[in-house]
Amino acid sequence: MQTLVQLPSPEDIRQSHTLIQPYIHRTPVLTCQSINAISGAQLYFKCENFQKIGAFKMRGASNAALRLDQEARKKGLATHSSGNHAQAVAKIAQSLGVPAHIVMPENAPSVKREATAGYGARIILCEANQAARESTLAQVLAETGATFIHPYDDYNVIAGQATAALELFEEIADLDAIIAPIGGGGLMSGTALCSTYFSPATKIYGAEPEQVNDAWLSFKSGVRTPHQGLPSIADGLLTNMSEKTFAIVKAHLSDVFTVSEAEIVAAMKLVWERMKIIIEPSCAVPLAAVLKNPSVFAGQKIGIILTGGNVDLQKLPF
Amino acid sequence: MQTLVQLPSPEDIRQSHTLIQPYIHRTPVLTCQSINAISGAQLYFKCENFQKIGAFKMRGASNAALRLDQEARKKGLATHSSGNHAQAVAKIAQSLGVPAHIVMPENAPSVKREATAGYGARIILCEANQAARESTLAQVLAETGATFIHPYDDYNVIAGQATAALELFEEIADLDAIIAPIGGGGLMSGTALCSTYFSPATKIYGAEPEQVNDAWLSFKSGVRTPHQGLPSIADGLLTNMSEKTFAIVKAHLSDVFTVSEAEIVAAMKLVWERMKIIIEPSCAVPLAAVLKNPSVFAGQKIGIILTGGNVDLQKLPF
Repeated sequence: MQTLVQLPSPEDIRQSHTLIQPYIHRTPVLTCQSINAISGAQLYFKCENFQKIGAFKMRGASNAALRLDQEARKKGLATHSSGNHAQAVAKIAQSLGVPAHIVMPENAPSVKREATAGYGARIILCEANQAARESTLAQVLAETGATFIHPYDDYNVIAGQATAALELFEEIADLDAIIAPIGGGGLMSGTALCSTYFSPATKIYGAEPEQVNDAWLSFKSGVRTPHQGLPSIADGLLTNMSEKTFAIVKAHLSDVFTVSEAEIVAAMKLVWERMKIIIEPSCAVPLAAVLKNPSVFAGQKIGIILTGGNVDLQKLPF
Repeated sequence: MQTLVQLPSPEDIRQSHTLIQPYIHRTPVLTCQSINAISGAQLYFKCENFQKIGAFKMRGASNAALRLDQEARKKGLATHSSGNHAQAVAKIAQSLGVPAHIVMPENAPSVKREATAGYGARIILCEANQAARESTLAQVLAETGATFIHPYDDYNVIAGQATAALELFEEIADLDAIIAPIGGGGLMSGTALCSTYFSPATKIYGAEPEQVNDAWLSFKSGVRTPHQGLPSIADGLLTNMSEKTFAIVKAHLSDVFTVSEAEIVAAMKLVWERMKIIIEPSCAVPLAAVLKNPSVFAGQKIGIILTGGNVDLQKLPF
């Protein structure tokens, strides 16, 4: 198996799934009658909140790591992230018995530092700005020879994230639509490729917070456009799309929806109360979009990727 | 199918399962590697927090209602409860298209009143004491001819609650032990009968809060003994066992464990954080007992009935 350096093919996605299977959970697809009644649609939730490390990021990081040859693996893995991708890189490195070097801003919550360190990773703190993250990472790469695993701008990561939709399509036939959240676009572009290849009649939608609307701006204008940098409770979706991910989003999506902060919190609370499962705010964004747009979704069979469940129980928004 | 008036047989439990199946969810059995590592045991969680109305109570109430003849059903169902049993009686009555009359203390949280009323039940408020509950219920029964469905002191309810363990044994072979919480004892006695009949090599354990230790007092002394009436965060377990349920507990359990309030909260938080599922405090009591007693449970295959997930998100204990 080799590192993917061009747009993943259907076969690349299938091979990625086979490759990562021993390192991930096959997560369940859940339904909820009362949320179906509220939405007027039949919703199929792919529960990546139950994935290892609590998020879909385990799929992409595993695929990128497992496609490295033995020599590269031995030198270790590296990334800059304070979120779920950091834990995913740390976890797959631990599983493979190789070092992980994670660059985090010095203001990252201690709970996230501890979770990542708990998988045996070395944490390197840096100043809380993009330039410091990049220069610190460059220094780590130079010193260690480790391979940088980008959180989304990498075809190996995109093909790995695509496997969540692949499992969903294997279980649920004839989905009218599939919807995922858009941050950097790794999950969204993987989901879009997978749907295009394996379920071509399924429409593909993305959703993001109004306050972090780079995907909406970019999709509607046709030109990759960054957001204004406002905050959002959906802290997994603050990143702008990359060239690679936007190209796929532009080519394959039917539409991108934005939702308000209040709509995100309401959808998150609905899932907690009715489904009795824990999802993080970023994860609630697609359901919020479905609830906000009944004219698009009512009466249809919709696949929703629930992306993660890593939430600080001491700081709940309700 | 007839109302059960004596100790349920193996065939009664099997028939109850067939009878209620169209009205309940078959809930999943989940495992969690990190909680296995913490406990040193292999734990199989039967997730009744995903059951209809969010708790196992749906099983017993459904069995009691479905065993009534058409004439009795038409006159409706009644109970006194402010908890999950109230919602279960309301829900099965709604499914059968018959009236439900639920007596609740006037200080019951409005969220619980609304949930029960949401299933179309008539709520009758009474003063917050046992005498008022009983006399108000008696008046409702006299006026309506409805059938009283007791939350636990009823063989139909016990046989219905037994079906959770039945499904668990169907999926997971060779459990060394099974453990459930004890409130009034309906779930515990049903679980004990089911285990005795269908998996006789499996040891049967109960768990309850230290502050509500009637099962422990009764089991250890051999004489049914009420608790002192202290409060507990495990608000589903405040009831004392009945004659029917204690007789089964006494005959079949290997031991009863008690846990502190802090141990309950810690076990609840562990499940939320590691399994990403929502359980109520009462539901965490058996896991708390397993974590507290490694000398009993380590190295074994343990079935744990997770009883419910109805928790007020505005009033979390952590």
